[in-house]
Amino acid sequence: MHASSVYNFAAGPGVMPREVLLEAQRELLDCRRSGMSILEMPFTGAEFQNIADQARRDLRELLELPPHYHVLFLPGGASTQFSLLPMNLLPPDGRADYVDTGHWSRKAIAEARRYVSVNVAASGAQHGYSRLPCRRYWQLDPQAGYCHITSNETADGLAYHRLPDTRGVPLVADMTSDFLSRPLDVERFGVIYAGAQKNVGPAGLTLVIIRDDLLQTAWPACPAALSYRVQIDSDNRFNTPPIQAIYLAGLVFRWLRSQGGLKAMAARNRRKSEALYSYIDASDFYACDRQVADRSRMNVCFHLAVPTLTAEFVEQARCQGLLNLQGHPAVGGLRASLYNAMSEAGVDALIAFMETFAARHGRARRRCG
Amino acid sequence: MHASSVYNFAAGPGVMPREVLLEAQRELLDCRRSGMSILEMPFTGAEFQNIADQARRDLRELLELPPHYHVLFLPGGASTQFSLLPMNLLPPDGRADYVDTGHWSRKAIAEARRYVSVNVAASGAQHGYSRLPCRRYWQLDPQAGYCHITSNETADGLAYHRLPDTRGVPLVADMTSDFLSRPLDVERFGVIYAGAQKNVGPAGLTLVIIRDDLLQTAWPACPAALSYRVQIDSDNRFNTPPIQAIYLAGLVFRWLRSQGGLKAMAARNRRKSEALYSYIDASDFYACDRQVADRSRMNVCFHLAVPTLTAEFVEQARCQGLLNLQGHPAVGGLRASLYNAMSEAGVDALIAFMETFAARHGRARRRCG
Repeated sequence: MHASSVYNFAAGPGVMPREVLLEAQRELLDCRRSGMSILEMPFTGAEFQNIADQARRDLRELLELPPHYHVLFLPGGASTQFSLLPMNLLPPDGRADYVDTGHWSRKAIAEARRYVSVNVAASGAQHGYSRLPCRRYWQLDPQAGYCHITSNETADGLAYHRLPDTRGVPLVADMTSDFLSRPLDVERFGVIYAGAQKNVGPAGLTLVIIRDDLLQTAWPACPAALSYRVQIDSDNRFNTPPIQAIYLAGLVFRWLRSQGGLKAMAARNRRKSEALYSYIDASDFYACDRQVADRSRMNVCFHLAVPTLTAEFVEQARCQGLLNLQGHPAVGGLRASLYNAMSEAGVDALIAFMETFAARHGRARRRCG
Repeated sequence: MHASSVYNFAAGPGVMPREVLLEAQRELLDCRRSGMSILEMPFTGAEFQNIADQARRDLRELLELPPHYHVLFLPGGASTQFSLLPMNLLPPDGRADYVDTGHWSRKAIAEARRYVSVNVAASGAQHGYSRLPCRRYWQLDPQAGYCHITSNETADGLAYHRLPDTRGVPLVADMTSDFLSRPLDVERFGVIYAGAQKNVGPAGLTLVIIRDDLLQTAWPACPAALSYRVQIDSDNRFNTPPIQAIYLAGLVFRWLRSQGGLKAMAARNRRKSEALYSYIDASDFYACDRQVADRSRMNVCFHLAVPTLTAEFVEQARCQGLLNLQGHPAVGGLRASLYNAMSEAGVDALIAFMETFAARHGRARRRCG
């Protein structure tokens, strides 16, 4: 299968901007005329420091980040941060609110419970995670050290399109799968963290954005290299960072700026997801049971009216170069992830395939019925 | 500066095999005809699993790893493992021996002390870290859960060329800077860990090799994603791993096999380091004060008889394409790292430059003297 004839709908690691891959390819043996590959650069040298500083500056500009927010590039992914958050933000007898909106918030809750007292302020379980829990019934703990949300549920296809009011309790968001997909009112947040392997690029890197006044000395058991305080005090140079991942993230930040920044991304992401949801809603062959107001623009989860055809759908799509459309194993069904780097042409190609597939199998269904 | 005219002597991240970089470049947009970049591959998909499985198999063959040793690919570097080792191997009231041979063992000791009771069984401090501490005087704790050594001190230029007898206490080695540089008698070790950014390749990946009977349930405060037990029980798929780093490590393992494996590497590494040490020892312009029997074959630390010329040496070398020859900031002086991917031609070029530099400045010195 040739890369140029492929659309990759994977939930992450997933599609990256072709321009970024081409640039990374072009300078893989000789990065910025240093004579070295990015893979070979000492992290304390001027060459890499320039790259890391530029990446940080570009990210700050994209997000219009106020100076009292720090940016950390840490190894690992969001799952590691599920543990590091309570260790870095709370005392051992601390309390935190968590809102359960699906697969990934449940994971965050399970891990946080190993460290602190967790109040599940609201849960979408009673609605089968087909919508976000109604704000009116959230039971927030006024003593909580923070309130944790999963801004986009990658597996369940839900997203916050309006931020909750947590009444002065710092809002902490796992933004792994919608980070940089739209402008952010950063000052509404205490901490934002995001595994990079969706809209930022490479797996093995997590971005943590933290408001200065929330920095604590981490728990004694927190590995020094993973302490927010230690890394910020050492200018994120406490130890060798994931160098190539930071370089690639920097290329993506540049690309985002060249595309018009987060407003342009948001507009494009809205068009892409609305095209697909509209097609699904108008079809009697496909269905999406997520409440319209809470639907994710990153991960469109849907299913077939004839679920037994799911595997065939995925396989036929794959043969046409439409890759990785299976749903998350814990949720089932189908899922098309439409990250920043997915083009509108990709969504058009998917809809065209869905039409053909429905026409063929819809007829078969009617004949059988 | 053009990559083909450069020799990179950085201590890590450092030089990588050119063949590996070329292959990574060639398939950066389309990995193994999947139509996807390695950066875009879902980690649960067959494509990446094949890549990870092959990497693991090749590593096992290179090391002739017995079946009762597990291999883990974890995010982060050795500094993170300084904390994770005691949390994964010992109870909270545990005791461990550490041997202090220089900069990196001191770092490991400082971090381990935050978790368990550390007995420094021996220290090279009294000899200014110019040699390994004499075996005869090691004060081992028979109750220690493990004995930790740093098999190669990257900053100080020392290495174990004969393993210590720890009298039944499991030997744990930080092998970051000499892993895969020579054959290993793995059964002498309980745990081997190594940040990848020396002989394996990319920063942001650590390899942990652990004997089955040493696996414990990690401390309650250990992040689940960094628990050896949790990762082994989930076949190293608990969460998204650093995918591209694993892919690149796999390319390096293949390259090592094509080069004749670890025996061939050891022979070449011996030739390279002996050529450089011999030149230094015969010179009255350069000096290495490390005891001959304990000298590292990876990191050749030396200095100038006229230390004020050090910065000029580094800069003139750089202009000739001989990069990153400054010593570790904590140690000073000069350092040439001769990892597997450094060719013998690179060492020859360095020695030729050193001759020229000495001829010019040696004369100047004599004139001034």
